[in-house]
Amino acid sequence: VRLSGDYGRLRERLAELSDVRKAGELLAWDQAVTMPAAGAAARAEQRATLDRLAHELLTAAETGRLLDRLRTFEESHAPDSDEASLIRVTRRQYERERRVPAALRGEMAAASAHGLVAWAEAKRTRDFQLLRPFLERSFELRRRYAECLDEAGDPYGALVGAYDPDVGSHDVDAVFGAVREELVPLVAELAAHDDAVAGAVLERRFPAEAQCALAREAVEAIFGFRPGSWRLDPAAHPFFASGGVDDVRLATTFMKPGLYSLFATLHEGGHALYEHNVDPALARTPLAGGASASAHESQSQLWDLVVGRSRPFWRFFYPRVQAAFPGELGGVQLDAFCAALDRVRPTALVERSGEVEFTVHLLVRVELERELLAGTLAFRDLPSAWNDRVERYLGVRAEGDEGVLEDPHWADGLIGYYPTYTLGVVVAVQLWERACKDLPGLPAGIERGEFGELRGWLREHVHRHGRKFTLPELLARVTGEQIDPGPYLRYLQQKFRERVPA
Amino acid sequence: VRLSGDYGRLRERLAELSDVRKAGELLAWDQAVTMPAAGAAARAEQRATLDRLAHELLTAAETGRLLDRLRTFEESHAPDSDEASLIRVTRRQYERERRVPAALRGEMAAASAHGLVAWAEAKRTRDFQLLRPFLERSFELRRRYAECLDEAGDPYGALVGAYDPDVGSHDVDAVFGAVREELVPLVAELAAHDDAVAGAVLERRFPAEAQCALAREAVEAIFGFRPGSWRLDPAAHPFFASGGVDDVRLATTFMKPGLYSLFATLHEGGHALYEHNVDPALARTPLAGGASASAHESQSQLWDLVVGRSRPFWRFFYPRVQAAFPGELGGVQLDAFCAALDRVRPTALVERSGEVEFTVHLLVRVELERELLAGTLAFRDLPSAWNDRVERYLGVRAEGDEGVLEDPHWADGLIGYYPTYTLGVVVAVQLWERACKDLPGLPAGIERGEFGELRGWLREHVHRHGRKFTLPELLARVTGEQIDPGPYLRYLQQKFRERVPA
Repeated sequence: VRLSGDYGRLRERLAELSDVRKAGELLAWDQAVTMPAAGAAARAEQRATLDRLAHELLTAAETGRLLDRLRTFEESHAPDSDEASLIRVTRRQYERERRVPAALRGEMAAASAHGLVAWAEAKRTRDFQLLRPFLERSFELRRRYAECLDEAGDPYGALVGAYDPDVGSHDVDAVFGAVREELVPLVAELAAHDDAVAGAVLERRFPAEAQCALAREAVEAIFGFRPGSWRLDPAAHPFFASGGVDDVRLATTFMKPGLYSLFATLHEGGHALYEHNVDPALARTPLAGGASASAHESQSQLWDLVVGRSRPFWRFFYPRVQAAFPGELGGVQLDAFCAALDRVRPTALVERSGEVEFTVHLLVRVELERELLAGTLAFRDLPSAWNDRVERYLGVRAEGDEGVLEDPHWADGLIGYYPTYTLGVVVAVQLWERACKDLPGLPAGIERGEFGELRGWLREHVHRHGRKFTLPELLARVTGEQIDPGPYLRYLQQKFRERVPA
Repeated sequence: VRLSGDYGRLRERLAELSDVRKAGELLAWDQAVTMPAAGAAARAEQRATLDRLAHELLTAAETGRLLDRLRTFEESHAPDSDEASLIRVTRRQYERERRVPAALRGEMAAASAHGLVAWAEAKRTRDFQLLRPFLERSFELRRRYAECLDEAGDPYGALVGAYDPDVGSHDVDAVFGAVREELVPLVAELAAHDDAVAGAVLERRFPAEAQCALAREAVEAIFGFRPGSWRLDPAAHPFFASGGVDDVRLATTFMKPGLYSLFATLHEGGHALYEHNVDPALARTPLAGGASASAHESQSQLWDLVVGRSRPFWRFFYPRVQAAFPGELGGVQLDAFCAALDRVRPTALVERSGEVEFTVHLLVRVELERELLAGTLAFRDLPSAWNDRVERYLGVRAEGDEGVLEDPHWADGLIGYYPTYTLGVVVAVQLWERACKDLPGLPAGIERGEFGELRGWLREHVHRHGRKFTLPELLARVTGEQIDPGPYLRYLQQKFRERVPA
């Protein structure tokens, strides 16, 4: 379909922008999965060029002129129509990007590249001092970035809002306040009842080839991707990328103990299903993607945490896992397996955490990044503040700089990003409760290995809309609610309280 | 290094252009090697967008202004300096692209995409009529394209020159005239002495996994790529792509009989070595690639045909092949193996041809495409003309439309491209003779598995220059000669005459 007039011209421009962004996404996928290692330097230049071209296409004066001329056209369409949504979302992106000087964007990209290199070296040598100047630079640049965007005197909220339009500090306060109040004591209580012997079955390393075959089997059984539209590869870290609705790519590592790779596959599969089921009419527009970072996390964690750690799921899937690892799990009964899966055992590192401790770890990170951004915590004091806070909330103490160096978000410039994981799971549970009301047979279906009903519900209510609505708008449409940590906390209390001996 | 002034601005612009082109090349590689099949439609759009952006960057008025302002700068540098070469080659590309209207470029790209689909269907059903309208369109568009470029009243020469600057119809006449005169009778004579029993050892299908391991072993032993800078993958057809000097990618199929995959690996490895060894100072410029299509073929065929079918090479490499296929070749002596390798047996299809028959097949294609372009052969008569010409030159007759549908060059719009294969091997032998004069120990070294001397010679005399010189300029620098089929024909006569019983 060739559209004429200003709307057609905007669509053409946005299609070009989408193609350039997809090319960048594919180059990033290639870098992580297939690129010969020595190609990294050239690849960095290529990705920077595509980023710059995309930025130029979006922020060009011509884009602004078209958006201006389309105000009447926009108002003549319903707000949830493709046309009005496209113009509204594009205008929001256009205005946000125009506020950020090109020089600052360039500095942030360069600081992120240098920061990641410094982080890897600091982590290897467990020496925070190697990273410190890069972290300071990273926060300083994000402070300037926040100044460009902030309209409410709330720099941290502006950073959160950059990942999640319409979400701000009040949502972060509400969610993490509840986490502090409810999950910190829950972890302490559950930790006292940890059964290390039962937990040991998932501490061992399973054969990588069998893990890989099992991950593919899970994708086939659960996600129902259209034939010839997906792939799954080994990579250093799990991630999802897409070249289009019919080109979705999952990657995970098979080098970690237990069922890490299976849950990572469910997680990335949830991201993939979201973009796979966006209405094809939105292809090659800025609407062809998830609503926001937290909305995307709500879809990954729905499959990874809510479905993928439920008893109905495991009644269906455990025999397949036993068949994949007969030596390791052939003699382990379902109850014992689920007990190991749901083990709560605070550790100083997030990597070995279960779902409850993971959220408490995020609480530590969110508190510290807000303090660093506000200037109430000095960078030189960060490692000890980190270790103190982990000890206060989790009852365990990290050694030296290991904890603060565990992951690269801050070095990468991702400040205000940690909340998206918890906002994601909070929304996942809100959506799940709504789905269970709409589909009373859902748990029984999952127990029979039938996932089509849930996929259909998600496609209809969430996926097909792509980026038409912000996360709060979307959630209100589906559930009538605001972001609310209540259901998530109740879900955890119910799931874990019953494990604690009376 | 950040360059200032007009030259610096030109370099920056060309670096951006190079990044966009490399992104397109990587997307094409991905499409052939890793892309989920259902991603094809979105990928076509992405590649078209990158092509268009690259075209716009090159042909923008700003490029022309910079080239104009740099005339004095260019004249103040030696013609073979990086600076003068960059400006000269960029100006040539700029002027050529500016002559071709954007609409015609778009029509050619679309016709190529549609033509390839039609070709695949016509080939499957062996029905030329399905392809005919697409071929007519393809030739018509190339006729218009040639009109844009042609300054000498020689449309075919203009098409050849688009692939090979400074090469034209007179080179094609000289080379293919000699082929007609010398190789047609040679094939007839050799065919009469074909030993079908000896040839049968390379007719069988070898295990794909062992083929793949052998191909990797050959790359390691022969090409000396820098560590972590290359990969080799299975694909439907052999090809080479590059994301930069340290990111070279070979692909081949392992589904064909005999040692097809090994020779394809040598061929693509020769292409890869060329781009791998371009002077890094030329990276991210239009000089960072092979001089031309024929120059590239000279490098691939040097390894595939000249080195890779020589007796010294096989004295070194045959034990490795026997070790890879002990069941198939363990009992076959080197002489018998080489006899099978050098078998000359005309067939109606090029796919099963040896090196001599291959060139005669190209003669058929070159004659016919010139007649089609000139309008002296009607498209409806093409299948019978094809079959008659093959019979006249090779003594065998194709059945129905199979021959004319064998490969997709014309459907793809590649008209005037067939000569590059033969020009390539002609130049390969000229370069090889020069190398043997400069390096008297070359054959003995190859017999010991030492390829570094030849690689070093090629890097110094050919590879490092990238696209600084046209093929005739490069050949004159290295050998003092023009393109001359004499050495190639002598090489074939010497190699094959001795096989004929006196």
